[in-house]
Amino acid sequence: MRLTPAQTDEIDAARAARAETRRPTVPALEDLLFKPLPVLDHGFVRVIDYMGDDGAIVQAARVSYGTGTKRVSEDAGLIRYLMRHRHSTPFEMCEIKYHVKLPIFVARQWIRHRTANVNEYSARYSILDREFYLPAPEHLAAQSAANRQGRGAVLDATESARVLDLLRTDATRSYDHYLEMLNEDAPHDPGRQGLARELARMNLTLNAYTQWYWKTDLHNLLHFLSLRADPHAQYEIRAYAEAMLTTVQAWVPAAYQAFLDYRLGAVTLSAGMRAVLRRMLAGEAVDQAGSGLPKREWAELMAALDAPPTGPA
Amino acid sequence: MRLTPAQTDEIDAARAARAETRRPTVPALEDLLFKPLPVLDHGFVRVIDYMGDDGAIVQAARVSYGTGTKRVSEDAGLIRYLMRHRHSTPFEMCEIKYHVKLPIFVARQWIRHRTANVNEYSARYSILDREFYLPAPEHLAAQSAANRQGRGAVLDATESARVLDLLRTDATRSYDHYLEMLNEDAPHDPGRQGLARELARMNLTLNAYTQWYWKTDLHNLLHFLSLRADPHAQYEIRAYAEAMLTTVQAWVPAAYQAFLDYRLGAVTLSAGMRAVLRRMLAGEAVDQAGSGLPKREWAELMAALDAPPTGPA
Amino acid sequence: MRLTPAQTDEIDAARAARAETRRPTVPALEDLLFKPLPVLDHGFVRVIDYMGDDGAIVQAARVSYGTGTKRVSEDAGLIRYLMRHRHSTPFEMCEIKYHVKLPIFVARQWIRHRTANVNEYSARYSILDREFYLPAPEHLAAQSAANRQGRGAVLDATESARVLDLLRTDATRSYDHYLEMLNEDAPHDPGRQGLARELARMNLTLNAYTQWYWKTDLHNLLHFLSLRADPHAQYEIRAYAEAMLTTVQAWVPAAYQAFLDYRLGAVTLSAGMRAVLRRMLAGEAVDQAGSGLPKREWAELMAALDAPPTGPA
Amino acid sequence: MRLTPAQTDEIDAARAARAETRRPTVPALEDLLFKPLPVLDHGFVRVIDYMGDDGAIVQAARVSYGTGTKRVSEDAGLIRYLMRHRHSTPFEMCEIKYHVKLPIFVARQWIRHRTANVNEYSARYSILDREFYLPAPEHLAAQSAANRQGRGAVLDATESARVLDLLRTDATRSYDHYLEMLNEDAPHDPGRQGLARELARMNLTLNAYTQWYWKTDLHNLLHFLSLRADPHAQYEIRAYAEAMLTTVQAWVPAAYQAFLDYRLGAVTLSAGMRAVLRRMLAGEAVDQAGSGLPKREWAELMAALDAPPTGPA
Repeated sequence: MRLTPAQTDEIDAARAARAETRRPTVPALEDLLFKPLPVLDHGFVRVIDYMGDDGAIVQAARVSYGTGTKRVSEDAGLIRYLMRHRHSTPFEMCEIKYHVKLPIFVARQWIRHRTANVNEYSARYSILDREFYLPAPEHLAAQSAANRQGRGAVLDATESARVLDLLRTDATRSYDHYLEMLNEDAPHDPGRQGLARELARMNLTLNAYTQWYWKTDLHNLLHFLSLRADPHAQYEIRAYAEAMLTTVQAWVPAAYQAFLDYRLGAVTLSAGMRAVLRRMLAGEAVDQAGSGLPKREWAELMAALDAPPTGPA
Repeated sequence: MRLTPAQTDEIDAARAARAETRRPTVPALEDLLFKPLPVLDHGFVRVIDYMGDDGAIVQAARVSYGTGTKRVSEDAGLIRYLMRHRHSTPFEMCEIKYHVKLPIFVARQWIRHRTANVNEYSARYSILDREFYLPAPEHLAAQSAANRQGRGAVLDATESARVLDLLRTDATRSYDHYLEMLNEDAPHDPGRQGLARELARMNLTLNAYTQWYWKTDLHNLLHFLSLRADPHAQYEIRAYAEAMLTTVQAWVPAAYQAFLDYRLGAVTLSAGMRAVLRRMLAGEAVDQAGSGLPKREWAELMAALDAPPTGPA
Repeated sequence: MRLTPAQTDEIDAARAARAETRRPTVPALEDLLFKPLPVLDHGFVRVIDYMGDDGAIVQAARVSYGTGTKRVSEDAGLIRYLMRHRHSTPFEMCEIKYHVKLPIFVARQWIRHRTANVNEYSARYSILDREFYLPAPEHLAAQSAANRQGRGAVLDATESARVLDLLRTDATRSYDHYLEMLNEDAPHDPGRQGLARELARMNLTLNAYTQWYWKTDLHNLLHFLSLRADPHAQYEIRAYAEAMLTTVQAWVPAAYQAFLDYRLGAVTLSAGMRAVLRRMLAGEAVDQAGSGLPKREWAELMAALDAPPTGPA
Repeated sequence: MRLTPAQTDEIDAARAARAETRRPTVPALEDLLFKPLPVLDHGFVRVIDYMGDDGAIVQAARVSYGTGTKRVSEDAGLIRYLMRHRHSTPFEMCEIKYHVKLPIFVARQWIRHRTANVNEYSARYSILDREFYLPAPEHLAAQSAANRQGRGAVLDATESARVLDLLRTDATRSYDHYLEMLNEDAPHDPGRQGLARELARMNLTLNAYTQWYWKTDLHNLLHFLSLRADPHAQYEIRAYAEAMLTTVQAWVPAAYQAFLDYRLGAVTLSAGMRAVLRRMLAGEAVDQAGSGLPKREWAELMAALDAPPTGPA
């Protein structure tokens, strides 16, 4: 992650500001405010603003005149109850706003979550930075044989170098031609018209970085994180989800813990899986053939029973 | 509007709290924070929390690293531009949360605005207060002859008294029977079972008061207000919209002014109206018959041209 | 459920119509089209229109040029996979539209599901029917002692009769006064002004019936049904959910079966429950005290393991 | 637009199918069903399914038991009234589903409209076609001097050829390297691992074509079209909007006509513009300096008054 001196100054100035407020305030999140958390090679996530805290969840659940909070343990118990029983509306009462710098192909996955507010840097209006994502060698993997939309073994060194060279060369050349077509910055050729920005941008590759402001409520954020911090999510978006989990932990620690227990670390068992489980608990030895479950569901049940609860390390 | 001493204490305690924050803070809205603004006979609106300010709109429009704000006049100009050209996403970057006490029939209109977060006081879980809306005599009006969904002349004193008596008696009796069926509070009759709350509530009338937390972004709030602060809106919901306008003015004065000019005080002219207007500006005397416009559209055009720009007084 | 002869004629005429279409068509749902399915004492649900079928789900998942369907068993397998892994977007490609007549207090629960399109019969504009919900005696229950928002034992006959009498008398009187204040229909008193409809309606009780058109996609419908066909839902809305389940079964049988297995009949186990389960499967005898689970979670785990998979009978 | 023989066969088979239905059916749209309407060099829009017609709008506005339609002129009048007064919910009762093939940079603009259902062809799962958008010379324009996010003069022939050559060469090379990194198809090199699809796709340029199923209701479709069929929209997405307008015209002709009059051909005048207009109608000669309007608003007012109502040619 590189920032220009002007950007660093802007961030420092924002971090230096202080005001007095009657609003619920979370010191642990204030510490993180405006600070870019690096993700991938040039990306970041930073919290720009927030509304509410753990107390705002219980306040809304109780529709109270004041803060609505009682003892910390009672509040945490209520938050756990709400999370377990999927009472989602109290979690919608907290809101957070991020500034994110991310590769375009990641932005395309991310934007599929529709219940958020977004302002993206406009390449119709402005010129994108000369930055593109090049995976670290340990993230360059072959197509998975088992999963049609996943990764398998990491590429060997030769292949990895070859792939990285192609990615770097193509992204660089496409970007250079983008600037050349724009013909705006030095070296500016006064003998040529420049192509409109809204057109020139089509020459960029999908690993070019874009950036946006992204704002959502806690319920929808946790839904996003449950999908994107999941081991099945593509590594590149998962890296963003993991950085965001640290901000959630600082912001709403009770909701975060409930989320780990009842979402990230939870499993859903189908009617068929439950039937198998009852037989097993009754002492019966059940294998896949005798279970009545298709192979894939059987494997999922075994994983649910054997694996330690997942969650961020 | 009546508050219990306990409620007043809760509000006072919330108002007395102070914290230091790095977030954008609006002193004029901080002054209003948690304070109930009375609406109708027993209702209120109060701001519980907010995120962002006028600067957050320009910050998002510029996707900046710092505040993104420049000179106040430049910022206001950008906000006017965004409002005029219906660039709605920067306005979505501000968020506000209200606590509202309102009659159920008003709540039923209000909830039709779907892009908001809501936590309503649950009558499955709790017992509603003994409060119902009784219109002031000047708001008791006959059905409009001209408009199938509006009000006409104010009722005369006799009729008004008669209607108020019916409303009061029926609401009171229904509420008393609600308590009697619940059989929870004094006088509790130990010889009878009480009816479940989720059932007993069906005996209440639609002017009973409910309350909720309602949270939305500035864009959707302004859309709500453009419909509900409109003279065609039912008076009872308009009274809430007008109280909320004062909070918007305190919160985001530049956006508020742009909203008055480009929404509340604006009119939309159809293709047909524009054609008539061009003829009039060319000096032609046009009347309805010669305009080609249906009577209703002609009347709307005349109103658009004659009336002073509307907006809150 | 009572229909006027004119309403019956309208429904018959709609059912008699036939057209030729290239669209996916589901004969089992065509049989139900426009037919009111009675719910509660005066309510109904009827399917007004639909888009798509089981094949449309696989077509969208495959983004195909034609129907995208293969062998029925392959399609059903794909639908089960999509449901199990919460790939919700292909289910959003089917849409259904209902006409529902329902008590206002049920409508208030229902409308909290925001991802749907709604057109409600307007009591600002029209006069509501003289119909209100009076529970059958077997549905009149006391407040639950265990669950603050549920029902307990059915009321005894004396108490039940007493409650029904109060409900009937208050609803009837309120409705009669509503008509009297409107002063529109016979007996019309020419000596009195009538009260505007938008005001008079506030005298109605919450068990008065309203009606609406409600349209949603299959994903959001199933989410609605998973909450409202659940045993914890209030009986009155559950009755609607159950009628709607029969329309889903007729419409998209493969998606319906997957929904029973992976949603209605499924349970979600928290990280803590999974840890207990692993100990039990390893042969350890675990009780609540030794489980580390709070009492309520322990009870939920026991229910998940003992109970037969739920689902509509 | 190129289709493979298999795709053509699939489309022909879908078009050949016929079923009998009780649903509202629109012969003019049935004629278009499944047929790809070519857009840009390789793109298309085709209607896959639809629900409702003009009659469904009035049926919902009247919450009727049957079709709710009366005489055609009365229905059209009601639709015009609903459109003029922004009663949006009846228009939400019609739904349409498209299959669209479009360049990725267009897809990124399009997806910002959040109130729609989308299933996109997955490049994590499948391999994209070897197709990328190359603008026709008349669409290759310089950056606008007046508008920071628009186009100005068309490029001269030399510059146009130079730009097209860069776009073609870079897109082709990036695509070839994408295939080479994948190493799946002929020529497959058995000595190399292939890169996972979810990674290789990042080498593609933003003019590569993707495709999706996109489903929305008529209200949101018209909102999309009012923004994207507007002359200020980027040409490439406007080309799609214009193709879709023809499908709207075939589908709901009364709503389409109302949309032309009250949206596409309408203008909104601010409070300040209205004040100027009143002075002009009173016979006063007003110029920008004396108008009190900023230059930009003055220009917009002049455009609103002079220009013939816009709309598709």
